Amino acid sequence: MENKYIFVNDQFIHHTEARLHVSDLSIQRGYGIFDFLKTIDFHPIFIDDYLDRFYRSAKEMNLAPPYERTELKSLVRQLIEKNNIANSGIKLILTGGFSEDGFTISAKPNFMMVQNPLNIGNEGFEKGLKLITNNFQRQVPSVKTIDYLQAIKTWPQVISHHADDILYHKDGAVRECPRANIFMVKGREVFTPQTDILRGITRSKVLSLEIADLNIIEKDFSLEELQAADEVFVTVTTKNICPVLQIDNKLINDGNIGKVTRSLSTLLQQLIRKDVELKNGF
Amino acid sequence: MENKYIFVNDQFIHHTEARLHVSDLSIQRGYGIFDFLKTIDFHPIFIDDYLDRFYRSAKEMNLAPPYERTELKSLVRQLIEKNNIANSGIKLILTGGFSEDGFTISAKPNFMMVQNPLNIGNEGFEKGLKLITNNFQRQVPSVKTIDYLQAIKTWPQVISHHADDILYHKDGAVRECPRANIFMVKGREVFTPQTDILRGITRSKVLSLEIADLNIIEKDFSLEELQAADEVFVTVTTKNICPVLQIDNKLINDGNIGKVTRSLSTLLQQLIRKDVELKNGF
Repeated sequence: MENKYIFVNDQFIHHTEARLHVSDLSIQRGYGIFDFLKTIDFHPIFIDDYLDRFYRSAKEMNLAPPYERTELKSLVRQLIEKNNIANSGIKLILTGGFSEDGFTISAKPNFMMVQNPLNIGNEGFEKGLKLITNNFQRQVPSVKTIDYLQAIKTWPQVISHHADDILYHKDGAVRECPRANIFMVKGREVFTPQTDILRGITRSKVLSLEIADLNIIEKDFSLEELQAADEVFVTVTTKNICPVLQIDNKLINDGNIGKVTRSLSTLLQQLIRKDVELKNGF
Repeated sequence: MENKYIFVNDQFIHHTEARLHVSDLSIQRGYGIFDFLKTIDFHPIFIDDYLDRFYRSAKEMNLAPPYERTELKSLVRQLIEKNNIANSGIKLILTGGFSEDGFTISAKPNFMMVQNPLNIGNEGFEKGLKLITNNFQRQVPSVKTIDYLQAIKTWPQVISHHADDILYHKDGAVRECPRANIFMVKGREVFTPQTDILRGITRSKVLSLEIADLNIIEKDFSLEELQAADEVFVTVTTKNICPVLQIDNKLINDGNIGKVTRSLSTLLQQLIRKDVELKNGF
């Protein structure tokens, strides 16, 4: 990664030199939004979906993105070419910018793009995940803000429980993981919560999958229902579909990966492969 | 302000050069805490109270402050001397530091101190404040985190209503303003909320004031009770006590500043003046 570049405002900068002045509203007030997409074989997967959400988040938080979509895509392309990393995660960050009074959003937000190598293999799939639950409702849940205070504050509990991630619920109503959406399978029905969550791109792709006799829909459910489900999985950009085998002290499906999870995972990977082949939107 | 310095980690840096690498967890994840104190005649007011809270916030968020109290006070003193600003606000910020994976807190958080001139006059007092209400509960409310997402997102409403600040309530239960605590006067009793709020230093000083026959206590109250109060005021480091004359469309005390507010304001200013004279804790 000697020659890795980070894009900051109008320039590609050597990654060691990518800095922001401390008056930026992310440092002063935790104010910013971001998005995170991945590349496979130098192609950014589902880029239009991620950019849709990026612009929607910016608008919701009163931030003016410095680039139109066509320009932004061109900059993403340049970043991929410069860094020459085939499989990667690319993070776009838009902050409140340099604020004179430390409170008012700048007319010119700061914009950054950071690219890092990403293992796009499916090795994690067979291992599955163990989640611990946390009673918490994210603020401004529909927007992909940079706010991960609760997740990072709670992380020591994930470590001490030898778990993999946190599952938020609001007084027993299941919401989401800090960086992933959750699904449960009951017979031939697949549910994912719809209230006060971030609508993940991978989540939306799974909702669009079609399997005979399988009904995949948005519907809220309780922690109790989730722990009694036939199968549970999460969706996340980095790992696609990943089975959940334990939630707190309760094993899901006796700790085994279910058939519906496997089928959906295969279909999702085909959809992603098709996006790479067709070079959709790029 | 040509020669203003900002302290970043181990150095006093010319303010234009004070930058953080974009891998800092404040930029990536909005993760950090801060505190804000003021100086009068080069003396930092109630410094031990502010540092108590600073260290408490750091501990609560699993951040290791790079300096012990004695060292930190010495650095505050050096900042005041270097910048030569008599009356000022000093902000101490401690972030999650540079994170390899963009999620794990660094063993070495980034620490900054920024000083800016502050008008310590009481001009704003006679004008009073108009507040607009917002149904919102701050996350991790007892900690002075850098999270002001909701306040900054909501600020355009303050402007469009020609108001001065936001008052948070949770389903009608009064909490606090984004950067201030709220008090109400009912006869000879003065109340300030105690549930899920940040305990301001100025708030604690007002709770310690003594006036004959006046009972100043922590006690939760509703928005309805607040709007029917005899007097309402906020406490905040920058302005001490400031009367609130309107909340949404409801005038408080027919839009007049009350006697109890005036008396407490005078007493608080005497307490601050005493701190300057005695050079307490510094």
